[in-house]
Amino acid sequence: MGTYVLVHGAWHSGRELEPVAALIEVAGHQVYTPTIKGNAPGDPKTTGLAESIESIVDYLGREDLTEVVLVGHSYGGMIITGVADRIPGRLRRLVYWNAFVPDDGESVVDMTPPEYAALFGAIAAERGDGCVVLPFPIWRDAFMNDADLDTAERAYRLLNPHPLKTLTDKISLSTNPALMTVAKSYINCTEDISLPHHYPWHPRLSRKLGLFRLVQVSGGHELCFSDPSRLARAIMDAGRD
Amino acid sequence: MGTYVLVHGAWHSGRELEPVAALIEVAGHQVYTPTIKGNAPGDPKTTGLAESIESIVDYLGREDLTEVVLVGHSYGGMIITGVADRIPGRLRRLVYWNAFVPDDGESVVDMTPPEYAALFGAIAAERGDGCVVLPFPIWRDAFMNDADLDTAERAYRLLNPHPLKTLTDKISLSTNPALMTVAKSYINCTEDISLPHHYPWHPRLSRKLGLFRLVQVSGGHELCFSDPSRLARAIMDAGRD
Amino acid sequence: MGTYVLVHGAWHSGRELEPVAALIEVAGHQVYTPTIKGNAPGDPKTTGLAESIESIVDYLGREDLTEVVLVGHSYGGMIITGVADRIPGRLRRLVYWNAFVPDDGESVVDMTPPEYAALFGAIAAERGDGCVVLPFPIWRDAFMNDADLDTAERAYRLLNPHPLKTLTDKISLSTNPALMTVAKSYINCTEDISLPHHYPWHPRLSRKLGLFRLVQVSGGHELCFSDPSRLARAIMDAGRD
Repeated sequence: MGTYVLVHGAWHSGRELEPVAALIEVAGHQVYTPTIKGNAPGDPKTTGLAESIESIVDYLGREDLTEVVLVGHSYGGMIITGVADRIPGRLRRLVYWNAFVPDDGESVVDMTPPEYAALFGAIAAERGDGCVVLPFPIWRDAFMNDADLDTAERAYRLLNPHPLKTLTDKISLSTNPALMTVAKSYINCTEDISLPHHYPWHPRLSRKLGLFRLVQVSGGHELCFSDPSRLARAIMDAGRD
Repeated sequence: MGTYVLVHGAWHSGRELEPVAALIEVAGHQVYTPTIKGNAPGDPKTTGLAESIESIVDYLGREDLTEVVLVGHSYGGMIITGVADRIPGRLRRLVYWNAFVPDDGESVVDMTPPEYAALFGAIAAERGDGCVVLPFPIWRDAFMNDADLDTAERAYRLLNPHPLKTLTDKISLSTNPALMTVAKSYINCTEDISLPHHYPWHPRLSRKLGLFRLVQVSGGHELCFSDPSRLARAIMDAGRD
Repeated sequence: MGTYVLVHGAWHSGRELEPVAALIEVAGHQVYTPTIKGNAPGDPKTTGLAESIESIVDYLGREDLTEVVLVGHSYGGMIITGVADRIPGRLRRLVYWNAFVPDDGESVVDMTPPEYAALFGAIAAERGDGCVVLPFPIWRDAFMNDADLDTAERAYRLLNPHPLKTLTDKISLSTNPALMTVAKSYINCTEDISLPHHYPWHPRLSRKLGLFRLVQVSGGHELCFSDPSRLARAIMDAGRD
């Protein structure tokens, strides 16, 4: 069976993906849920994008993983793209799950509506520690729109402040995703409005992959909390040969 | 539990929403289904938008309702926006269900394809009573596309001629929806082609809400007839805290 | 009950639609699955669009079918549009299933992204027999994205080389689809990325029908292989009065 590495998004760590990992393991696969540098307890909040990517490159090397189905959620799309550029030989397929797809020289904030860049900057400036957190009203209605209030609140308490620098640093790639020869999939949760639907994840960002397999399921941006079982099924549909 | 007020669309009255209301009541909520002025038997068909809004403002006052989840369908989006501008203190959340979202100075026909304005004008001119009715072929294929012919015919017989003036009058608002501080949701039925998908309800109109919660379900514009149970579930998902 | 004629897409023949036809027959309808000229064993691969349309006009005449619900898949949209222009009196409704909707003077390649026209030309030039085949990686990820590998491989083996001329010939119509008075439906499989979602089937092409009924179901371009039962249901929902 396959080897899956699930790379979380901003404000998350690998811990929050463990229930999804468990469901994929039950189906016979090996699953890993590393935490990106910058999101583990004690990590410097000055961490930038290159170091974050490097931490997952190192992880795959340290665990000596090959034929990896590398899954990235949201900001994790930056990470898996950088990893694919660095060590393509370890990968079987890239799976973007409502994830950013950068070309060389792009940052996360380059792909979000301008209001987001302004909001992130203002929050980080007010905190003064280089980190961004999401205001709860945005989290509840734009990220957890498919869940009840209790689930939204419990998930919110699990989040960690996210280093702003990883969102503003521009990625350095030798090959843009469309020209990468590894197989690619995009999972689009159809009610994901963390990016507004007039400025959407799919097809605005997914199209940058060139040829890719689309898997769509209902749900918001945080399907890992609102329906881990549906997410596990989508990841396996996206990741199979 | 919550207090829901369901505001119908053009050609409808509160009666047609009673089956949906009953399903929401079974879940423990209080539900009201007023008829907007202009759509009740005997109402003058010269009724305009301001009077129609006023009739629902009055209804909420007369019933002394507070913490209201105010739901508007289609043309009902004009009404709930106007009510929210007048008496925000009575509201807990606005829920637009494939509904118009006007900014100050906009009418329904300002938000529809130009062909619709022309069609409505021609029908009203031919009738000579200031009212519009929908031709059955449009109703059957563009409004009831998710239902069988018998359901489409039965629902058609329940409709009442709609005062054209409510669709051409421009709304007067002191605050546009994006700046209203009340919580907001948008229910989008994914097969609703009463507005064509190249000129859609969502996100073209929903985005005018600023931050809002999206709930999507399959179905056409008239889910109250084609699947009241699915609609009731969507309204409760949209209306919960 | 109704009379359905299912017209296949490029690379297919009527054979591949027989399982779907059987499911529609079980519901009490008569169903026919002709093979378009150019796709039957032994047909000249120089066949052009006019001859292909003519072959289905002839089929309906030979079988003396009337009140036909005429369903076209993909390239089959060219065929049913041409048939409707020629013999409208035999038809009850046109059903486009992720199908091309041509106006007078348009070809299939006029409605596809420019890369496709280039790819088709290159493949036909390399083969030297006037035919196009789809490379398996495109078939697997962009046409059969909703199926497992085994299903994708089995279906791929059923395909026949398709005459390029039918895709580059411009259709000749006396009436464009929007002005045809026959009833029309469009089935859109929401995960169909055989045309990319930034250049989609629906509403980009469907809107050319004018008034039409939309039926949407989940699935990729080849729902006949990935879920014949869901397709049969969608065809009957699209084809009923």
